[in-house]
Amino acid sequence: MKANDPTRKSWVEVAKDSDFPIQNLPFGVFRTASNPSPRVCTAIGDNVVDLAVMNYLDLFEELEIDNEVFNNPYLNQLMALGKTKTRALRDRIADLLDERNDEAKDLAWHFLHPMDKVEMLMPVQVGDYTDFYSSLDHATNVGSMFRPDNPLLPNWKHIPVGYHGRASSIVVSGTPIHRPMGQTMPDGAERPVFGPSRLLDFELEMGFVIGQPTKMGQRITTAEAEDYIFGVVLFNDWSARDIQKWEYVPLGPFLAKNFASTISPWIITLDAIDPFRTDNPKQDPEPLDYLKFDGKKTYDISLEVAIRTEAGAEATVCRSNFKHMYWNMCQQLAHHTVGGCNVNPGDMCASGTISGPEPGSYGSMLEITWRGTKPVKMPDGTERKFINDGDTVILRGWGEKNGVRIGFGEAAGKVLPPL
Amino acid sequence: MKANDPTRKSWVEVAKDSDFPIQNLPFGVFRTASNPSPRVCTAIGDNVVDLAVMNYLDLFEELEIDNEVFNNPYLNQLMALGKTKTRALRDRIADLLDERNDEAKDLAWHFLHPMDKVEMLMPVQVGDYTDFYSSLDHATNVGSMFRPDNPLLPNWKHIPVGYHGRASSIVVSGTPIHRPMGQTMPDGAERPVFGPSRLLDFELEMGFVIGQPTKMGQRITTAEAEDYIFGVVLFNDWSARDIQKWEYVPLGPFLAKNFASTISPWIITLDAIDPFRTDNPKQDPEPLDYLKFDGKKTYDISLEVAIRTEAGAEATVCRSNFKHMYWNMCQQLAHHTVGGCNVNPGDMCASGTISGPEPGSYGSMLEITWRGTKPVKMPDGTERKFINDGDTVILRGWGEKNGVRIGFGEAAGKVLPPL
Repeated sequence: MKANDPTRKSWVEVAKDSDFPIQNLPFGVFRTASNPSPRVCTAIGDNVVDLAVMNYLDLFEELEIDNEVFNNPYLNQLMALGKTKTRALRDRIADLLDERNDEAKDLAWHFLHPMDKVEMLMPVQVGDYTDFYSSLDHATNVGSMFRPDNPLLPNWKHIPVGYHGRASSIVVSGTPIHRPMGQTMPDGAERPVFGPSRLLDFELEMGFVIGQPTKMGQRITTAEAEDYIFGVVLFNDWSARDIQKWEYVPLGPFLAKNFASTISPWIITLDAIDPFRTDNPKQDPEPLDYLKFDGKKTYDISLEVAIRTEAGAEATVCRSNFKHMYWNMCQQLAHHTVGGCNVNPGDMCASGTISGPEPGSYGSMLEITWRGTKPVKMPDGTERKFINDGDTVILRGWGEKNGVRIGFGEAAGKVLPPL
Repeated sequence: MKANDPTRKSWVEVAKDSDFPIQNLPFGVFRTASNPSPRVCTAIGDNVVDLAVMNYLDLFEELEIDNEVFNNPYLNQLMALGKTKTRALRDRIADLLDERNDEAKDLAWHFLHPMDKVEMLMPVQVGDYTDFYSSLDHATNVGSMFRPDNPLLPNWKHIPVGYHGRASSIVVSGTPIHRPMGQTMPDGAERPVFGPSRLLDFELEMGFVIGQPTKMGQRITTAEAEDYIFGVVLFNDWSARDIQKWEYVPLGPFLAKNFASTISPWIITLDAIDPFRTDNPKQDPEPLDYLKFDGKKTYDISLEVAIRTEAGAEATVCRSNFKHMYWNMCQQLAHHTVGGCNVNPGDMCASGTISGPEPGSYGSMLEITWRGTKPVKMPDGTERKFINDGDTVILRGWGEKNGVRIGFGEAAGKVLPPL
């Protein structure tokens, strides 16, 4: 992973607090006003790099990748090339953007676009989407609200609990979200009522994207899991708490979640976040053998959630960290496939709400305002118990080490009234 | 729907008990040894009709459908043409196969294949899969086993309860299934154990396939729902009861279901089952307005499940009927989209286990053997509490009226040991 060398600099100017230094080089899909065909790109500083053009210019020559892989509305084909090839590609892009590469610099006008002049699109075609529930603090917080005598269920420390979610409504940052309508059962009522959700919430999550397929019946071990995980994104699992409360027994959340999920546009490779590996929280009781793992599979990545009002006042309501996850991604994927469930490139697995141990680190309004009992003060003097129409919820994330900051961009979505 | 005319006969010989008279004309995808490219077909009697060849021969001329729609591994593009066009296509096929059509009969050697000489493939690319839980008898039976004091939960008669399932592991009839491995918690144990599921079960369900897309935020009413439902299939929602029991709280079934689901290869159009419309069971309490509907949205379709041993002994263990559903497909789809969840051609929604009121009509081994307390006797003298390795589970279904029998073919799957 030459691309990770912290001493590298690019001939493209990169601000100190940029999410996209030469050590990041994430993958995404974009289009421009002058060329509306979706195509594959990477990011550097405030720029998007058109990888379809780079390939057309024979700059990846020795990798022998078909133009079709880059002239493509999704990264699925690229990811399916396998890690050896995509890692070599990322290393090659780093060489091309390296300050010592004058030849590529001379060609820059062909493939470099200012980021604020392009439209970022859904980076992957999501076949199946799974949501886990792997933060101990979140599970305990929510459990203590809904089941005070029994907050953490008996299976939670043995199973990375997860459930299937809706793939069709996963959208890229910037896509507006309509507040869902639905059935709720008001406290003390005899019959349910129908109307717009009154308790619209976000959930701060990270998602990982599958790059390689398996066949039905095949199991991925925790040791193999990183070969199958292409990279990670920020993931907002929008949730309608009032709908969820009434519908979720006994088969889990359905309409409370399936109206929308928002992801950041850049898939940050596992290679790029490699420097941020850290120890997993201790798992007690010891998990079953198929969930044991060697090495550091947890990542120290700072996460924040901000709410921005229609008028532009922004409040950061959560500061959390990916390292708070009790179950790591490798354990989640090993569990997901242990019964033989097959996976495909483009499949998405989200972490579940990532809450830390302190109140400032809770990853949902449900927990932040403790079911609405402790409203959040906004800079414009208004209060929030949950999310209002007109509000934009913005997830941000980054790792930092040896003077290098690897950022995730944003997963932002504005809430509109129901259609 | 000229194709439904019960007086029609085909120049192709059709046995009296065939699933595929000229009034059925379902859609599927097949390939042959001599031409391994998947392509779209219909069925008549014991034959498969190659619709790609029919279109190539300009037999659908006035419909102006691209060859690509038929030379396609999935029906998604065909369904996306819309009901006006696909209905006209089905009517045109009926004219071509009508006994009065000598011209088409003379061309038969181009497009007719004996069914036992072709391979039927997955008919649709499933984007998202949803499983409902809409049989009152099933919900009550299962509820009384797991929650004797509270069998039917308070939301059940207000909501067509559903949850998201795994799309990647839906396979076509004939595909073998590996028994899943997984975590279970033995009665009285302190810690879970890992191993092959000991309580492997089927669930007798029907699935409906979406033909037309919606946008996020859009709602489909019960009156519009039939425009979006292209057709129906038999659906076996394989279930590992011991895994399910330990994992399903609080977010629903996950590994207990996602290792495999088996569907029949033919999408039977809603038009073809139109003659079997019947009254819905009375819904009391009255559902909310968005779940009300006019007309007959329920179908009288006989359903059977058989278990065949490795040696070939077959026992029919369930005789049920699609008319037992408490919530109909239009209500399910209206509910699914009422919060703004978007749907796409190829999406699959299954009914949930279709149990009738009497013991002989229960749609799962869990209910048939009442948790293993009343084993089923097989013709070879062996007993079954659940499904053994080597067993094949076969779902069958058909409607019959005015001397016309519209059949579904089979959804069959053999259970193999874990890989």
